[in-house]
Amino acid sequence: MRAYDLIHKKRDGGRLSPDELRFLVRGTTDGSVADEQLAAFLMAVFFRGMDAGSELPAWLDAMLHSGRVLDLSAIRGAKVDKHSTGGVGDKISLPLAPLVAACGVKVPMVSGRGLGHTGGTLDKLESIPGFSVSLSIERFTQLVDELGLCLIGQTAEIAPADRKLYALRDATATVESIPLIASSILSKKLAEGIDALVLDVKVGRGAFMKSRGEARELARTMVDLSKAVGRGCTALLTAMDEPLGYAVGNACEVRESIEVLRDGGPAEIRELTLELGIEMLLAGEEVEAGKNGLLANQNGLPADGSRKSDSNSSEALAARRSAARAKLERSLADGSALRKFAQLIEAQGGDARVCDELGRLPAAKAVREVRALQSGVLAAMDAEQVGLAAVELGAGRARKEDAVDPAAGLVLRKKSGDPVRAGEVLAELHGASEARLDAGERRLRAAITLGETAPAKPALVLERVA
Amino acid sequence: MRAYDLIHKKRDGGRLSPDELRFLVRGTTDGSVADEQLAAFLMAVFFRGMDAGSELPAWLDAMLHSGRVLDLSAIRGAKVDKHSTGGVGDKISLPLAPLVAACGVKVPMVSGRGLGHTGGTLDKLESIPGFSVSLSIERFTQLVDELGLCLIGQTAEIAPADRKLYALRDATATVESIPLIASSILSKKLAEGIDALVLDVKVGRGAFMKSRGEARELARTMVDLSKAVGRGCTALLTAMDEPLGYAVGNACEVRESIEVLRDGGPAEIRELTLELGIEMLLAGEEVEAGKNGLLANQNGLPADGSRKSDSNSSEALAARRSAARAKLERSLADGSALRKFAQLIEAQGGDARVCDELGRLPAAKAVREVRALQSGVLAAMDAEQVGLAAVELGAGRARKEDAVDPAAGLVLRKKSGDPVRAGEVLAELHGASEARLDAGERRLRAAITLGETAPAKPALVLERVA
Repeated sequence: MRAYDLIHKKRDGGRLSPDELRFLVRGTTDGSVADEQLAAFLMAVFFRGMDAGSELPAWLDAMLHSGRVLDLSAIRGAKVDKHSTGGVGDKISLPLAPLVAACGVKVPMVSGRGLGHTGGTLDKLESIPGFSVSLSIERFTQLVDELGLCLIGQTAEIAPADRKLYALRDATATVESIPLIASSILSKKLAEGIDALVLDVKVGRGAFMKSRGEARELARTMVDLSKAVGRGCTALLTAMDEPLGYAVGNACEVRESIEVLRDGGPAEIRELTLELGIEMLLAGEEVEAGKNGLLANQNGLPADGSRKSDSNSSEALAARRSAARAKLERSLADGSALRKFAQLIEAQGGDARVCDELGRLPAAKAVREVRALQSGVLAAMDAEQVGLAAVELGAGRARKEDAVDPAAGLVLRKKSGDPVRAGEVLAELHGASEARLDAGERRLRAAITLGETAPAKPALVLERVA
Repeated sequence: MRAYDLIHKKRDGGRLSPDELRFLVRGTTDGSVADEQLAAFLMAVFFRGMDAGSELPAWLDAMLHSGRVLDLSAIRGAKVDKHSTGGVGDKISLPLAPLVAACGVKVPMVSGRGLGHTGGTLDKLESIPGFSVSLSIERFTQLVDELGLCLIGQTAEIAPADRKLYALRDATATVESIPLIASSILSKKLAEGIDALVLDVKVGRGAFMKSRGEARELARTMVDLSKAVGRGCTALLTAMDEPLGYAVGNACEVRESIEVLRDGGPAEIRELTLELGIEMLLAGEEVEAGKNGLLANQNGLPADGSRKSDSNSSEALAARRSAARAKLERSLADGSALRKFAQLIEAQGGDARVCDELGRLPAAKAVREVRALQSGVLAAMDAEQVGLAAVELGAGRARKEDAVDPAAGLVLRKKSGDPVRAGEVLAELHGASEARLDAGERRLRAAITLGETAPAKPALVLERVA
């Protein structure tokens, strides 16, 4: 088999066989297919796509098995993770993972770092003094078992083909391809050994997917692909036109997350945490039901057919959602979610006292209030620009190798729709120097549009794809 | 400027500026743009093309100036070269270059080697004992001036960006792109310092371009592009369904070429040599007329407008063609073309006695006659398969680094349309071993279809693009 012939075939719209796709993924991992050939193949896929029925499952399977695939089957209970396609102020994983774990679903979570205008869960966690995201696979497995959750960074052992291909795509303008995005995300997530995945596909100015149509296509592709390889998957399409919540930046977002776990915090952060939590608890129930169905079947009883269709009727589903929401709300109200977060921090080497004493989180050297120059209504706040303002403040990376300032970031005081009087504080900026604050303020002011009337607020959850 | 942004722009159908295209070509030559980025760009060009009016001339100009551009302006007379897109049995450069030089047009010719089923002029010339195609640029220039022609291989100094890009295209299935083909050929040819170029664009089963539409598009693109950068160009579309002439393989083709220069040889080789020769002589006249026009203009007289349109009327053109043909035929008849070839061989270190004594060309160890197994009419002979038969015999290369056997090849005794009796010789095979002959015979037999009636013979010259 020659890489040349496979590039040629894809270029001309042909369908590659599972063997051919495996050859390319193996060649990616062991270096036997040259980078320039992979780049040409990726660009051909950008134009020609991949067949969802045959090519994509085989490609994903090969990517997934290019490295270590964790086996968490010895751990009791459903293992469910959440993945977000990335947004500004998207700290949802922080309150969500301990909340869901507190409700009995295991959460093995391998996260990423921030790049460009979007933040990353790992950077946020590392702003907690002492917190380590570099645990061994063994320790990760142990914590998922004993504590019910663990949050680490991608290791070299997991989906090495994806690491290589992602770096190539990043250099060759082939990131924006739905089959490549879907297989990249799923190869990493499914290698964690999860039973099911809940996706938060962001849509809007601050998201990777600018239009709802694209976002829906990505969600549909990932849900179908995940099912094709035997793992449950549901997706929510959620709005990312303005930042999520009020805090943007690592320690700032940890503070806001802890407020949510204290049964407070901004309504939209709490709401999205609950919506995604409901999906994760339902996915966990599906997994358990599937296991029971299998047992029933082995005992000669009917398989999951009839019982499952009952439990999936719209009334039954509404009842299950409602029960899941109540369970999650209880865990916030009784402090068990916050306790779980404190245990997680301690288990991963961090200072768990931050949960009670927010002042233990790193504080910036320089703080500035940005005030409105005129009165009006906040008509629009461009999430991407706000994300870039946080980068200017030191909270993010312009390049992969850059370090982040854990204390840097901003806390909004106004969001779109809010009335604003001249001289009122729009946001508080945190940075290491006045120069950082100057740069951040310029970007932030450019992100904000004042008008005369309040804009229509889009729904937070736009659509569910299952 | 970042390569990433340029790939992205091309991928999305944008038009690159001359500065952006120069950045990519410079990055190709000095290695500052990574191979994987170039490969992705090339694949994006495969899908998106290049704008003929603005992108392609700038791209060609950058490729052309990526290395040394010969200045032959000190040499008197028009400098005209011919380029063929490659076929089987296409030895036309061998009789054509000395014939045209004997008629007073200078021929600075930089040629290539055979790859795949097509042969290369350099390999053919090197089958002449002692002939060297590796001369210095200085010696090349001197021979063009004093002898009127010189045939060498591409040097590292000429169009280095094309060498790099061609190797990448060859590895990444991005060869078959008309703008990339056109710019690649022209960057090498125009760097020779020629005033005009005549193209032989092959069409058919044995050609790179299988359909007349594609071939016409390539010819049109090259003629327009060449003119856009100020060099004359005309193209002939010629048939390449079956091999050109009877000989395929290096020394075999030199033999057939010398026969043509001796005023004999197969009619179609003589005819195509004359047709391309006419184009080269006319191109030479245009160049001279242009120079005179320029002088006239400098003297305050009207520019080339009126006079040129006279000389281009269809009657005038027919008269010029007829005069050119007569001149070429005289040079074949009076032996001046053959003498020019002998002088060329001697000047490039070869044994010029081959012109009189064909037996001095290398002879194969093993020779075999392939005989017809049944009677009929030779209905079809697949040029590509015949080319591959010659490769099996040792005349060509499966990979770039392979050596060729100068004596290997085949001489056809029958061509399509010829009646064949069972037991009659179809072809004579030449190779280094019986195993080679076996492999060659298998391929050759697969190339030949016997039928009951003679097929319609397509015209040799299908169309002229000027």
